[in-house]
Amino acid sequence: MANVLTSKEEDYSQWYNDLVDEAGLAEHSAVRGCMVIKPYGYSIWEKMQGALDKMFKDTGHSNAYFPLFIPKSFLAKEASHVEGFAKECAVVTHYRLKDSDEGIIVDPDARLEEELIVRPTSETIIWNTYRGWIQSYRDLPVLVNQWANVVRWEMRTRLFLRTAEFLWQEGHTAHATRDEAVKEAEQMLEVYADFAENWMAMPVLKGIKTPNERFAGALETYCIEALMQDGKALQAGTSHFLGQNFAKAFDVKFTDREGKLDHVWATSWGVSTRLMGALIMAHGDDNGLVVPPRLAPLQVVIVPIYKKAEEIGAISEAVEKIMEALKSKGISVKYDDSDKQRPGFKFAEYELKGIPVRIAIGPRDLEKGTVEIARRDTREKMTVSMEETPAKVAALLEEIQQNIYKKAKDFRDANTRPADSYDEFKQLLEEKGGFIMAHWDGTAETEQRIKEETKATIRCIPLNNPKEKGKCILTGKPSEQRVIFAKAY
Amino acid sequence: MANVLTSKEEDYSQWYNDLVDEAGLAEHSAVRGCMVIKPYGYSIWEKMQGALDKMFKDTGHSNAYFPLFIPKSFLAKEASHVEGFAKECAVVTHYRLKDSDEGIIVDPDARLEEELIVRPTSETIIWNTYRGWIQSYRDLPVLVNQWANVVRWEMRTRLFLRTAEFLWQEGHTAHATRDEAVKEAEQMLEVYADFAENWMAMPVLKGIKTPNERFAGALETYCIEALMQDGKALQAGTSHFLGQNFAKAFDVKFTDREGKLDHVWATSWGVSTRLMGALIMAHGDDNGLVVPPRLAPLQVVIVPIYKKAEEIGAISEAVEKIMEALKSKGISVKYDDSDKQRPGFKFAEYELKGIPVRIAIGPRDLEKGTVEIARRDTREKMTVSMEETPAKVAALLEEIQQNIYKKAKDFRDANTRPADSYDEFKQLLEEKGGFIMAHWDGTAETEQRIKEETKATIRCIPLNNPKEKGKCILTGKPSEQRVIFAKAY
Repeated sequence: MANVLTSKEEDYSQWYNDLVDEAGLAEHSAVRGCMVIKPYGYSIWEKMQGALDKMFKDTGHSNAYFPLFIPKSFLAKEASHVEGFAKECAVVTHYRLKDSDEGIIVDPDARLEEELIVRPTSETIIWNTYRGWIQSYRDLPVLVNQWANVVRWEMRTRLFLRTAEFLWQEGHTAHATRDEAVKEAEQMLEVYADFAENWMAMPVLKGIKTPNERFAGALETYCIEALMQDGKALQAGTSHFLGQNFAKAFDVKFTDREGKLDHVWATSWGVSTRLMGALIMAHGDDNGLVVPPRLAPLQVVIVPIYKKAEEIGAISEAVEKIMEALKSKGISVKYDDSDKQRPGFKFAEYELKGIPVRIAIGPRDLEKGTVEIARRDTREKMTVSMEETPAKVAALLEEIQQNIYKKAKDFRDANTRPADSYDEFKQLLEEKGGFIMAHWDGTAETEQRIKEETKATIRCIPLNNPKEKGKCILTGKPSEQRVIFAKAY
Repeated sequence: MANVLTSKEEDYSQWYNDLVDEAGLAEHSAVRGCMVIKPYGYSIWEKMQGALDKMFKDTGHSNAYFPLFIPKSFLAKEASHVEGFAKECAVVTHYRLKDSDEGIIVDPDARLEEELIVRPTSETIIWNTYRGWIQSYRDLPVLVNQWANVVRWEMRTRLFLRTAEFLWQEGHTAHATRDEAVKEAEQMLEVYADFAENWMAMPVLKGIKTPNERFAGALETYCIEALMQDGKALQAGTSHFLGQNFAKAFDVKFTDREGKLDHVWATSWGVSTRLMGALIMAHGDDNGLVVPPRLAPLQVVIVPIYKKAEEIGAISEAVEKIMEALKSKGISVKYDDSDKQRPGFKFAEYELKGIPVRIAIGPRDLEKGTVEIARRDTREKMTVSMEETPAKVAALLEEIQQNIYKKAKDFRDANTRPADSYDEFKQLLEEKGGFIMAHWDGTAETEQRIKEETKATIRCIPLNNPKEKGKCILTGKPSEQRVIFAKAY
């Protein structure tokens, strides 16, 4: 069977687009920059949501919902915030259409007094709400998360990675002290790293952004950075310490235990459907998606192999028992006995979709009391007795989860390199990509010049970064530590 | 302790507003007509979502996600559809703000070529997408649901009941035959009725809407109608048979088994955060919300009663055992040992929030090996031995679920009355409210006149409605059946 995907080697970008399309994950819609998340893609997102939501609740957060629209004046209240979002936002100006000689038109009489922005992020509307929720230290902390759609009018879009509308969660917390807010921002970074590594099987670097790359309105932006198979970095989640910026902009004060009035301290943190892009690029291969078992909506598929219609009865009977045993272990399994497609077609289809384990069973297997098990990650096949199948599959799912993490980590480690001169830096970027550890003089100007000249950005200054004296690769000025550079999505 | 809510008797509408506010369910936002769903309100909505989502999946549906924006021209493609939604929609006309002498303004150079409507419902964008998904009968049925926010620019808003933005789910299915689509619309009506009755404990009438009250673009609208405690009806869910209207508007055709090309048949169906309003009004009382145990985010709260600090240790120890036993039965329980509030305050607070079961335990109880259990629905209290508590609570939760359903059903039945003349009809409406069963001549004119003169609308023509010869209450013309009238939310 011909491969339906362009190979990664040949054209990585086309491979990604082919995979998103062929595996039924998402497609472009008729609205510029907005995607349709197709049922299979959405079912993986739902698994991500479920795992993250539980982690948020386990750390004391509740969900809530805030308006889609933000008054223009709200956005303007925090200076660097509006700077960051004004250039790419959807603006609602009218609230009615009407019939006319030229067909349906926007009714000029239905102009809004104040324009509304479709939320690009919700700090402003949420902090305006928190003013009513917080009077005293007794009302703190406020630990709230929202699952929502947001819109940023991106001009160059890419399914999952960069779209005008995307789905995300945004946590917004309020605290009595600076310390507590910083701890919250750090805690949520740990939650994201835990999710990335233990659910997505994707190793990440934890660090802080340079001032240049901070979220608009934050005092500190923590991030997790992953490395994709083409050697480009992907920011997979951010957690911001916002200081008192939004509390000041929206006048949110509280009385502390001593009766003193002070502004509230804030954090916000988010991950988005961008993680779907990360998942695809972290593990996918030329045969399709590879879904980590813990996030797989479907973990096992069973395909009967038979020539004569009368053989299917006995096969199905054996399958029934295996299915029951798998389900009792909490494993999701589907029996695909549809006669519309041949087994080879089904195999390719389930490989495309990245189903972790495939079981095939035919009359010969029945005789011998065995099945054929194929794992998606290595594509190895093995013959296993029916009785041992449930235990073997359970172990295999765990093994696959570990294996794809290890593979991604080995790749990341092999593609994290030091550079000690600007020439070496540029050569590495050109020939190898990956994370490059280099000295930087700490100035925005240098960072900017390197970005303009090489397209590489500082992805992060790793947490607990070892101190090491050195010289900035561009200016030769003294530096105390290496930072992580890469080209990025 | 003074009651924080206006009594229902005194001012039902104010009672509702007070309850939504005091129980921490929702509040108005700074954006006209848009609400903030607060954490406790949202946690009940999450329980509703969870139950409904499982029912949708059990009936073969998958979730997906479609764009927030709809090109103006799409809305215009189905004539009655645009008629229904054009008058109250949010229109995006620009995609950028800019700095100016007058502060931040909409950038006149960033005008969209075609205006985008914030989705009031998604039939058009979804059917435009389905054109690419459906070629042959093999691609059918398409059974997709979306959880999303929608916007309808309502001028008179009410928290949960009528807001400019609300959350909902919208199912959109595509079928090869008319029959199959009708069956799907009917099946989803049954799902909604099942949910309303068995989860929300809210009895509903199942019926079809008159042509006047149909969804814009539907051939048939099925609905469930509930009766609130003030005698007004509330439409709690609708399921539409859309015929081939949208398939024709968006040119979605398929090849059937015989190779013949035909347009696809459609349904759509939805329920929204309006159900939160229904839940409040179906069961709430002057002490607050009454949450059906099956939808309660928190089913049991335990409050320690003590005077001296040294008493709390032994109480907490006993509570720990009860909590474990309750949790092992899948019951959600919280131990509120906070010393910030007195027990009386806590009792009132948990009554406001409608927690189904409250357990109080003090030193005297410890001695006797008992606890005091209070049920929210009847406010009865009982003394139960500690060993029997877990079993008793489990039984009580089930009993409360049944009891509040029965109470609501008895109320509905007692407030469903026949009227045989227009005078009697008007008098009943004025003095009693409720559902009124009356003969109607079947014309839109009569329906409209009755609405204008009395504010009552035909809520539905019940499914399996008994035939009965009679005369229209307004015109005296012959009629074959009674239909259900009421004033409605």
